[in-house]
Amino acid sequence: MAADEQAGPAIILVEPQLGENIGMAARAMANCALTDLRLVRPRDGWPNPDADAAAAGADAVLTAARLYDGTAEAVADLSRVYATTVRTRGMVKPAVTPRRAAEEMRAGAAAGERAGVLFGPERAGLANDDVALADAVLRAPLNPAFVSLNLAQAVLLVGYEWYLQASSAPERRLEKGGAKAAPRAELENFFQRLEAALDAAGYFRQAERKPMMRRSIRAIFTRAGLTEQEVNTLHGIVSALVSGGHKTPRSGR
Amino acid sequence: MAADEQAGPAIILVEPQLGENIGMAARAMANCALTDLRLVRPRDGWPNPDADAAAAGADAVLTAARLYDGTAEAVADLSRVYATTVRTRGMVKPAVTPRRAAEEMRAGAAAGERAGVLFGPERAGLANDDVALADAVLRAPLNPAFVSLNLAQAVLLVGYEWYLQASSAPERRLEKGGAKAAPRAELENFFQRLEAALDAAGYFRQAERKPMMRRSIRAIFTRAGLTEQEVNTLHGIVSALVSGGHKTPRSGR
Repeated sequence: MAADEQAGPAIILVEPQLGENIGMAARAMANCALTDLRLVRPRDGWPNPDADAAAAGADAVLTAARLYDGTAEAVADLSRVYATTVRTRGMVKPAVTPRRAAEEMRAGAAAGERAGVLFGPERAGLANDDVALADAVLRAPLNPAFVSLNLAQAVLLVGYEWYLQASSAPERRLEKGGAKAAPRAELENFFQRLEAALDAAGYFRQAERKPMMRRSIRAIFTRAGLTEQEVNTLHGIVSALVSGGHKTPRSGR
Repeated sequence: MAADEQAGPAIILVEPQLGENIGMAARAMANCALTDLRLVRPRDGWPNPDADAAAAGADAVLTAARLYDGTAEAVADLSRVYATTVRTRGMVKPAVTPRRAAEEMRAGAAAGERAGVLFGPERAGLANDDVALADAVLRAPLNPAFVSLNLAQAVLLVGYEWYLQASSAPERRLEKGGAKAAPRAELENFFQRLEAALDAAGYFRQAERKPMMRRSIRAIFTRAGLTEQEVNTLHGIVSALVSGGHKTPRSGR
């Protein structure tokens, strides 16, 4: 569908604190023709009159904003997720510039994939578990001596690069032979199934290391940009390994 | 002089109204390593505590800001001046994007020329006489249905394009926190181990499909750019799943 091909990335604000910043982010989105605003647990509830006042006419974006209880739910329908963060805290993730992310998202959109960009709370930034949900980290290559970008400014850079590339061809894309990247909900489903199997097998023996181990595993598989078929393959592998352990190998079939 | 050659454009705010916007503009300048802030008749006087509060640490930019009574004085030492405005009101001026302006300013800076960019008051925008002082009009190519950019957002786009053209940072790289990608031999070793486990579990039941299935599995894991630590994690997962199937789950360890 043409409309789907043109759909810009979802802007996902995780635990935004100031309504004013939500409004300014909505204004930046409107500047760049982005319309899909998602809010995860905004601190001061929703709707928020401070957001309306700061939106400077971008009311349609605020009115259409959707609320979520968790980041995983907010990205469940997306096939490609970026996390805006300064640090990767030991997780192995590709780091891309806004320009490169825009190229990748344009290529994905042309294949019918939806993308989204996660922005953390104003001071603390994204939590590790939210970064773990992302395929890649998105970081503007700005002054290393003063990297702290205002929330709406970060949204603007993402939207600006997206808008500018309306007509340019991507320099790098993943050739999937027509296959689509799996939506996040399917990936999450696989993770939960794998983690349950690992739990049952006693893999997470040291409880204090479990969160870090979970993030490491997720980093391996979110980085791969898996297709739906590949997620099915991984399910098959886990099934085979779990059931194979207590069966004799089938021979010759 | 080397320092002069590197000097970024002066940011000239003409009759800015809100101190908060001056502070946010200073923050955007610091994000882009710009230092030369000039204020023409700020409405609420100068210094302004609202500006300090909004600068989020970009105090040095505010402290070094210079005050002017008129726009002509503020641009007197500059060789190249851009006016940010949506309309040219019948004046014949070249209109450039922030990216093109940055290219031109970089070229000028290499020849020892100083450049500056004029920004008008929040609501009214630049007066005709101020636009008349400029070599060209600078306009971000954003959503024509919603062009109204916040003052600090406009400053950011100018600074962002300026900064990007100096930086040679790669647009995409894998952040591994010092970890190295696993050599292919280790990856191959993991594949063979996984395939042996899958063989034993009867996963490759249809012999004619086995080569295709092997390639699919390899594609999943080679695309991920795995580190040595991650290959070890995958070995651990396979071990746990294979052995977990015929053990009772370990509890509490």
